[in-house]
Formats: sequence, structure tokens, C-alpha cells
Amino acid sequence: MDGKRIQDDIQRLKTSSIKVSGSSEMVRNALLRSISEGLTKDWSLIASANQEDLAQAKAGHLREALIKRLVFDEDKLASVQMGLEQVARLDDPIGEVLERRLLDQNLLLERVSFPIGVIGMIFEARPDALVQIVSLCLKSGNGIILKGGKEAFRTNTALVASIKKSAQSSPLGEHWLTLLESHSDVSSMLKMDDAIDLLIPRGSNAFVRYVMDNTHIAVLGHADGICHMYVDERADLQKAVACAVDSKIQYPAACNAIETLLVNRSIATQFLPLVASALQEKGVIIHGDEATSSLVPCTPYKEGDYAIEYLALELNIRVVEDLDQALEHISLYGSKHTDAIISEDKASIRCFMREVDSADVFANCSTRFADGFRFGLGAEVGISTAKIHARGPVGLSGLMSSKWLLSGDGQTVSAYSGTGAKPFLHTELGCEGSSLVEGELV
Amino acid sequence: MDGKRIQDDIQRLKTSSIKVSGSSEMVRNALLRSISEGLTKDWSLIASANQEDLAQAKAGHLREALIKRLVFDEDKLASVQMGLEQVARLDDPIGEVLERRLLDQNLLLERVSFPIGVIGMIFEARPDALVQIVSLCLKSGNGIILKGGKEAFRTNTALVASIKKSAQSSPLGEHWLTLLESHSDVSSMLKMDDAIDLLIPRGSNAFVRYVMDNTHIAVLGHADGICHMYVDERADLQKAVACAVDSKIQYPAACNAIETLLVNRSIATQFLPLVASALQEKGVIIHGDEATSSLVPCTPYKEGDYAIEYLALELNIRVVEDLDQALEHISLYGSKHTDAIISEDKASIRCFMREVDSADVFANCSTRFADGFRFGLGAEVGISTAKIHARGPVGLSGLMSSKWLLSGDGQTVSAYSGTGAKPFLHTELGCEGSSLVEGELV
Repeated sequence: MDGKRIQDDIQRLKTSSIKVSGSSEMVRNALLRSISEGLTKDWSLIASANQEDLAQAKAGHLREALIKRLVFDEDKLASVQMGLEQVARLDDPIGEVLERRLLDQNLLLERVSFPIGVIGMIFEARPDALVQIVSLCLKSGNGIILKGGKEAFRTNTALVASIKKSAQSSPLGEHWLTLLESHSDVSSMLKMDDAIDLLIPRGSNAFVRYVMDNTHIAVLGHADGICHMYVDERADLQKAVACAVDSKIQYPAACNAIETLLVNRSIATQFLPLVASALQEKGVIIHGDEATSSLVPCTPYKEGDYAIEYLALELNIRVVEDLDQALEHISLYGSKHTDAIISEDKASIRCFMREVDSADVFANCSTRFADGFRFGLGAEVGISTAKIHARGPVGLSGLMSSKWLLSGDGQTVSAYSGTGAKPFLHTELGCEGSSLVEGELV
Repeated sequence: MDGKRIQDDIQRLKTSSIKVSGSSEMVRNALLRSISEGLTKDWSLIASANQEDLAQAKAGHLREALIKRLVFDEDKLASVQMGLEQVARLDDPIGEVLERRLLDQNLLLERVSFPIGVIGMIFEARPDALVQIVSLCLKSGNGIILKGGKEAFRTNTALVASIKKSAQSSPLGEHWLTLLESHSDVSSMLKMDDAIDLLIPRGSNAFVRYVMDNTHIAVLGHADGICHMYVDERADLQKAVACAVDSKIQYPAACNAIETLLVNRSIATQFLPLVASALQEKGVIIHGDEATSSLVPCTPYKEGDYAIEYLALELNIRVVEDLDQALEHISLYGSKHTDAIISEDKASIRCFMREVDSADVFANCSTRFADGFRFGLGAEVGISTAKIHARGPVGLSGLMSSKWLLSGDGQTVSAYSGTGAKPFLHTELGCEGSSLVEGELV
């Protein structure tokens, strides 16, 4: 039975991921590098699998954008191999002491970072995302269940086969990783509450939204990215033009590109012609509200525009009365992703940064900086708009949980309770040095 | 329309909670103390409301344990007032700099702690839990939607009325807090994905399980608490007896009491008579496996016992071959809450601490230490067995999220991309000192 096979597979995966989580940094890093070498060795198999997927996609008249994401060529290979090396060089996220407190003499409490357990990754059509997430899970000691789109089935199968081959020669074995066959539905994965601790969906906004709405498992990711830039009355207009243009055109299909520019009325007459011509020079179509339309040539705003994530060279411009109206607009239409203010007034900046309830709140720079690599996180797991666990660009830390370790010499709670109760010391200690579980690794 | 009224209420609550999150520590602490005084002033109203709830509960033949939880007498009042004072004295959790990195000259990144937003609390019958969670939400700048059990309706209404009265005289107002009427179902609250960022259910295991299984909102809590103690072959038997007895009898109805004692075969003959007589002296009924039954008088184990959370003076004892079999047992039957090893062997302790996938993993002490106050967290939001966001005993930090703040002077991403790209500095800075949003608070 298929269900039974999957159950067995996952049980084995859990056992195997415990081995990975207990392994030394050296073993995990060596495997990351051997996976990279393995991809080179197996390149012809992978490339021809990808050719078959592409041929089928073209025959099936898939959208051009989808086909582009499906491509796994030598450039993509080089980039995932560079990624594997970068991840190998990151600090070991396992076993870091996050809190340390002496509860009483010989009663030492530590909170230590440990892997979350089993990560479920669901992705539509980007085979390079498979390698990236596998490398992050391996580094962080998590097991991983992969479910790729059927368009990339052959490429994914070839990639996983190559990765498993490398893993077989490692002390860690190959069972911490499994690829679900394409006939098992995404919906069955969404129901694996018992097996999967965290889901990471990669794909279109609609796809991520579908995953979020149809599972009780925690989801790390974001659906819409409706980002704003507000140009304050005390903005430096040169900076405002540069930042607005960059935020829109540097990569319009990115989630952190802006969809709406909010302009303070007191500078509108001066600023709008500057920014409109700079944007239009780059081919941006402007959807302007009434005030904007009266100052610059543009497409008039129509109902609903503020809620659209264009992901293209289109931008709403709205004139607002003041900072408060800008905040209101962002609260109403924003997707809690990334929003920026351009202003030379410190009080306005502070107010904006405090009140905008988004993962990333910027002042006087492009929204396009919202990215794990630019933030210096080393590797990016994804960008989360959730407010629990991890928020904004998420590095390896998003794949980590923690355990409380308490080590005593026979203490009982009754001694610390009732009349004559011993008091606790609760002495805060530094987090430096090795944890209670360090040493003697695989 | 009721649904419309709730929607409006929640919109007002969101706006109001932003005010709370932006308020100074002083304002929030002053309100915590005035809530405490208000409860004294309103005591006769609260006490008589509680009397009515109790009379109805008795007339309706509610279980004794439930009635006990429903009581809100002067002792409970004193204890919640002490709690309010303790929470007022805690460090301000808002605005803490968690990471600080210079991405480039004049491009400063900070990750700063901010409230999660809106907490939903669902509780069965403990009115003191209402005051506790309100105080924690206020301290942490979160809005709160409360839904109490109908048994405690009058008491809850009186408590919330008193709290709101105190809040009215504060700059924060009363709208960051709302009590849903008893006719609006729990199930409608579980569907408020858009309004509620985190659910905290308090009540029976079955109730918490129900909540977890019926919402897409993140839940902070735990259902079952099936905790274990493993007595290793190199255990100090005196410590083992003391810790096992304490872990079982110090408060048998607690989630962190043990339900199963695992004993290494090599010490069983010596240890079992000691521990059995110590436990039986305290009235504990032992369910022993075959090996245990052959050594001490007990009720023979029957199928399914290992999966029971007795919450009473009953305990399974099983003889295991070795540490591996103990780990296997815990992995199979445990609820990832709290498990302990008693051993003088450092390697066994390390192995146990590393491999047991529970929120709390202890060595040579009672499992009953698993508690926010004993851990020195100041205030306890709850104990979480989830592996994301917060795990184990959770302090105020469980009610916090964070934002990424980036402050520049007009930087664009295009300058850091493509040929001639500027490199990032990514200089790690310390987290001391005030954040980008500090100053000028309400």
C-alpha cells in the first residue's frame, strides 16, 4: 500500500534526521561539498532529465515564465554549487546556547538550539530551489520531505538521486531526505501534521496562499507582496526619486518591489513631475489618483488598483494629506511585507517605523533591500510575513528550534515548595562556551 | 448584526493595540498597578458574580475539579494581584534590539522586538487565568480577544468590566481588550485568521487538542503531557528514588508529572523494591510490566497503559534493556513535553539530552522543574510543545515578534547589483543602546 510505504519512509526519515542533528559540523559540511561534486558527476543525467521536462512543458504550452523557472542549465548548476559552498561555510546552527541560568547550586539550565525536526517543502517548478533547501536542511540537521511540481518531475528525480548517491557514502546515509512521487497529492502532504513540523512552500502567490489556507502545519513564507513607499513632506526629493525608481524597476517581479507610491500633498507639485518622468523613462505605467492625474500624465486610478500586486512595470501613485493617511493606507492595503518612508524628519521616520506593522520597515532606501543575502543572513530560507517564529527574510535560524536542558544532582521540586521552601538563585550566566550536550559527536 | 459588531470591535482593538505597543513602559506599568487596585475596589461585584457562577455550576452538577477551578476567592485575588505587580516589575519586552548590522556606510539594519499584535485567549473555567493573560498582553503591547467558558461568564464579565474601568483612566483607553459574549461560539473565534495572530488556549487537554485541530491560527500550548523518567544503569539510586517520587507525587495533576518510569534491567533487582515502596507509601498505584511484576507487588501492565496521561497517583514502570530502548519508548509514547534521565554517566546524559526530542530534557532532577517561574522567566505565558516560535515554558518573549528596521540615506539596490556592484560591509554591531525607533513615546 502506498500510504503504508510513505508512513514507513517518514518513520525512517525521522530516525535518520536525529542522526543528522547529532552529527558533527564537519560531517555535514563534507556532505554538502560532496553533493556539489556529485551534481557535476551526474550532470549529463540531470541535464537530459531537465531537457525532457522542458520539452513536455513546451508541448503542453506552459506559460513562458513557468518554463523559465523550470530551466536547470549550467548557469543554474553553478549557482546552486556556489550556494552549497556558502552554506558549508556558515557557522553551525546546532547546539548554540541561547540562554543559560543557574537555578540553584548544581542546577544548571540551558536553552540550546536544535533542529526543528522534519521540514516539508512544496514547490512548483524551480529545481534549483530543491537543492538550495536540501542544503539548508542538511546544514541545520533537519529531515526533509520534498514535493515538487509534476512539470519538474524528471529533473527533481535526477537531482534527488544524485544527492542520495552522495549521501550514501556519508556516515549520515540517505534517509533524512525523501521525494514524494508525483501521484501523491499536495493535499495529502498538507495533512501530515504528525510528520511535518514546518512547511516551506515555494511558488506563485496563489500557490502559497493555497498552502497556508489548507493546512494546520506551520507555514514559513509569504503570499502577496504589496509594498509601499511614502514620500514625506520633508523628503530629499533626489533620494525619493532614486529610491522609488529602484524599488519599482530593479526587479519588478520580486515580492519586495513597490506597487504603490504615496506622496505627501505639500510636495506633490514639485515631486510628481520628477518621479513620473524618471519612472516613465523606464517604461513604468502609472495609475494615478485624481490629484496625481492633474499633475502628471498617467492612467487614471480605478477601484481595486491599490490591492493589486502588479509584479510588472506598473505603479499606483496616490497623494495623501499626511503621514497618518499614509499609515492608514498601508494598514488597509499592505501585505505586511516591506514598506518604506523617505524623509529627513527623524520624528516622522520613528513614527512610521513604529506604527507600520510589516516585517520590514525602511527609511530612505529601496524596498528591494528586503532580502536575506543583502541583510547578511548568509543563506535565505525564505521571507516570512507571519508574526510568529520568524519574520521577514529568514536565515538558517528559521529552521531551528530549541530545547531546555536542565542538569542537577538529584533536586526535587518539593524542596523548593511550601513552608521552608528553598529560594531559587536564578543567576544569569553568559552563553559562551560549550553546551551540556557538546562533545562526542558522530 | 452581531458579526458586524464583532468586526468593528476587532478593528478598534487593532488600532488601540498599536497605541499600547507604542506606549512607554511607565504608562503600561501604571495601568497594571491600577488594574490591581481596581480589582480591590470592585471586589464585592466580582465576588458576588463568582458566587452566582458557582451556584449555577453546583446546581448543574459540574465535576468537583471544574468547580474548584471556577472559584475566584480572596486567595485567588491576592495571587493575581501579586502577579500584576510581578509583571509590572519585569523588563520592558518592547523595542529590544535583537540584531544590529551595518550593511554599508549609513545603511543600518536592526531587528527589534515588537508585539505580535492580537492574542486570542480561549479558556474554560479559570477566571484567574483571565487576569494573568491580560496583564501579560498589556505588558507586551498586544491587543487581546478573550473567550471564556459559559460556566464563568458572570465572573469574567465582572473582571473585564473592572479592568476596562481602570483602563479608561489611562492614556491607553480600554479598547485593546475585548471579551466575546458567551453566545458567540469558540468555533467562530478559531476562524478569525485575519484578526488573531496567536491563540492561547487554557483548559483541559481535550480542549487544547480541539483548538489545535480546528484552526489555522498558530496555537501556543500543549495538549498531552506524557512525561518519562529513565533510570540508567549508572544511576545514583538514592537520587533516582527522590526524583521519581517527586516527579510523580509533588503535583500529580500537572502536565509535567511523570506517567512512566523506565528502569535499566541491570539495576532493576536493586532499584525496583526501593522505588516501589517509596511510591506506594505515598499511595501511588504501580502498573508494572512483566519484569517489574516479578520483582515488586503491582497491578500488571495492560495494553495501552503507556499512552495514558493518568494525572493521578498512578505510574507505569517498565524495565528496559538499555538507553536505546528507553529512547525508543519515549519517542513512541512521549508527548515531547518533559523527560528526564537519572545517571552518573556523562556520555549517557549527553546522548539522552541530544536524542530526546522534547521541549524539556533533564538530567538528575525532577520533571516538575519544567515551569516558567522555576526556570526564572518571570511570568509564564504557557508551556508549548510546538517546535516553532517558542518551546517549553514560555515567558513574555512568547508574546513578542520582531521587525527589521533599515535606515539609509537614499541607497538603491541597483548600486549593489550587476557589474561594478558595491560590496556590502555586513559589519556585526552590538545590540546595546537604543533602537532606531526609541524616544518620544506616549
